[in-house]
Amino acid sequence: MNESGIPTLAESYGKAPHRTTGNGPRNVNVLLESLRGVGGDTPSDMYGRGETIGKFERKLAEMLGKEAAVFFPSGTMAQQIALRIWSDRKDSKTVAYHPLCHLEIHEQDGLKELHHLEPVLLADADRLITLDDVKKMPENVACLLLELPQREIGGELPDYVELEDISAYCREQGIALHLDGARLFEILPYYGKTAEEVCALFDSVYVSFYKGVGGIAGAMLLGDADLAEQSKVWKRRHGGDLISLYPYILSSDYYLDLRLPKMAQYYEEAKELAALCKAQPGIRTRPEVPVSNMFHLHLDGVSAATAGPIIASVQAETGIALVAYLKENGERSCSTEIAIGDLYEGVPKDKLREAIGLLGQRLAEARG
Amino acid sequence: MNESGIPTLAESYGKAPHRTTGNGPRNVNVLLESLRGVGGDTPSDMYGRGETIGKFERKLAEMLGKEAAVFFPSGTMAQQIALRIWSDRKDSKTVAYHPLCHLEIHEQDGLKELHHLEPVLLADADRLITLDDVKKMPENVACLLLELPQREIGGELPDYVELEDISAYCREQGIALHLDGARLFEILPYYGKTAEEVCALFDSVYVSFYKGVGGIAGAMLLGDADLAEQSKVWKRRHGGDLISLYPYILSSDYYLDLRLPKMAQYYEEAKELAALCKAQPGIRTRPEVPVSNMFHLHLDGVSAATAGPIIASVQAETGIALVAYLKENGERSCSTEIAIGDLYEGVPKDKLREAIGLLGQRLAEARG
Repeated sequence: MNESGIPTLAESYGKAPHRTTGNGPRNVNVLLESLRGVGGDTPSDMYGRGETIGKFERKLAEMLGKEAAVFFPSGTMAQQIALRIWSDRKDSKTVAYHPLCHLEIHEQDGLKELHHLEPVLLADADRLITLDDVKKMPENVACLLLELPQREIGGELPDYVELEDISAYCREQGIALHLDGARLFEILPYYGKTAEEVCALFDSVYVSFYKGVGGIAGAMLLGDADLAEQSKVWKRRHGGDLISLYPYILSSDYYLDLRLPKMAQYYEEAKELAALCKAQPGIRTRPEVPVSNMFHLHLDGVSAATAGPIIASVQAETGIALVAYLKENGERSCSTEIAIGDLYEGVPKDKLREAIGLLGQRLAEARG
Repeated sequence: MNESGIPTLAESYGKAPHRTTGNGPRNVNVLLESLRGVGGDTPSDMYGRGETIGKFERKLAEMLGKEAAVFFPSGTMAQQIALRIWSDRKDSKTVAYHPLCHLEIHEQDGLKELHHLEPVLLADADRLITLDDVKKMPENVACLLLELPQREIGGELPDYVELEDISAYCREQGIALHLDGARLFEILPYYGKTAEEVCALFDSVYVSFYKGVGGIAGAMLLGDADLAEQSKVWKRRHGGDLISLYPYILSSDYYLDLRLPKMAQYYEEAKELAALCKAQPGIRTRPEVPVSNMFHLHLDGVSAATAGPIIASVQAETGIALVAYLKENGERSCSTEIAIGDLYEGVPKDKLREAIGLLGQRLAEARG
């Protein structure tokens, strides 16, 4: 609560009975649910070995059409290691990625501090990497990382044809192409492709199990058998080769099976919610029409300081939670991220429309 | 089974109804048991924040008498980071440790490959580091790591007075002293000291939750508040700052409470078992009298190839599992590691004596 007794944005989000985003609270039940069908005598993996880890790695390798897969505790670890291996293979410290790449803005510069790699930033921060950007890269780039969808700009995607062109160009030039596929499963319905088809364009792939999949934590790195073996050596060096990773492996496997079939539904629901939001004056979405389960909601003409209490009041009054936090973008603009999961389908649509209408009205009043 | 239908060492160990070492199989039940008393609505930690992680970190900081504690997925990660921070503080890449230090032999040279630190190896591989070794270190050593007990030589310990002298010398010389306390709780009964008293001799401390404590995985790094804060930055860089570490945190907390009070019992039982073993000709233990829950069992005058089937037959006949694996030490000598946990107290003592007697007899026959 703030001084005047009005709930804060986070409070109103937490208390509202209906949430438009996510799969529900991240609590111990998420783990317990995933273990309900697992026998207590199921043996632990042991430092990366054993059936519990091997079976899941083989499942993903087959699903994504790659020779080998290695389970990692985190994508941060998996991706730094993938780039390091490509750098060593090509004998060049230079890699390339988007200015808002996870490695550039969320990892405390691990890639530079631990691996001494030198990233070239492609494109402007507010747009996707194009074939043209790729063609202008320095000659010594060992590996290009593409993130699909580009999360920090709302989850945008290149046209599939452009993706194919970038892949063909990199192969021609001997540049390794790595996929940051933290949200790979989420984009398949839009592209109308299988995971294997998308991954065939890339030399190595990372996928996450706690974004749309909604697991607890964990990641998989996929590529050729040699890359996989080398990545295990680096996993040990990073301190990620735990004696037991099964709490993450078993839950990742469970939620992958549960939510893969729902990705098309999440995508349709994201388009529905985005359309409802942007029908209000001063509310935009990015992308205009979502291409996955996610989008960014932009509020124009209001600061986060102004919009926050307004949204909080709407959430408290209607019981519909839309926004958990706001990011300030310049002086009179703010935004938030929406990622559709299991909860959206349970939101009463009449109340949702009412809440969004009320929000549009009050934001318009605030703009004056 | 081998060709002649005799079970292998590992098979006979796995099938014997009574095991002298450990706490039982590493399987999913270990996790389930630890969660039985935890509410399903207990919130996840979130990237190192929240009550679930904060409470456990404060508990350990208080127990070990340090300003701050940071939970890590692994000791490999925690210790490399501790040494890196000391190296940066003292502006020297040189650190010192035992030739059989975990960082030197089990981590694929992560310390060198990721942090470019240059370890000086103290003492010979088969004995403890002494004050004299420490006094002869090069001047530019930023940090000395001591492992208590020294696991790879059977879990030996220096006299407490020597430990105090090493600590005093390092303080005087401005050398940071770091404790590899993977088995810290296991040595307290022998020293007759509290964890806080032992840790007071060190500037930073790592403890593990899956050795004697018998948890699933996880480690804690402790030291001053600044070291803790810096270690979180490095944890992010290593890819260890997971969105959720609660499966390890909750289970570590559970098994720590469960097994801390049993460490004195494990220690007494280790002494009992070692005495029984070394009463047989050609069987030695290291240390001669254990100083924790662990010791190494050395079989003299027989190779692993000879001793393996003999031990397997004894284990199959008596139902007492003593040895899961053998390590070859030169041509006619082999050894294994014993670590006492919950299972030992359930082993029928008459059968245990019978099995060890039979083993001694058959090994003597094999020596001829």
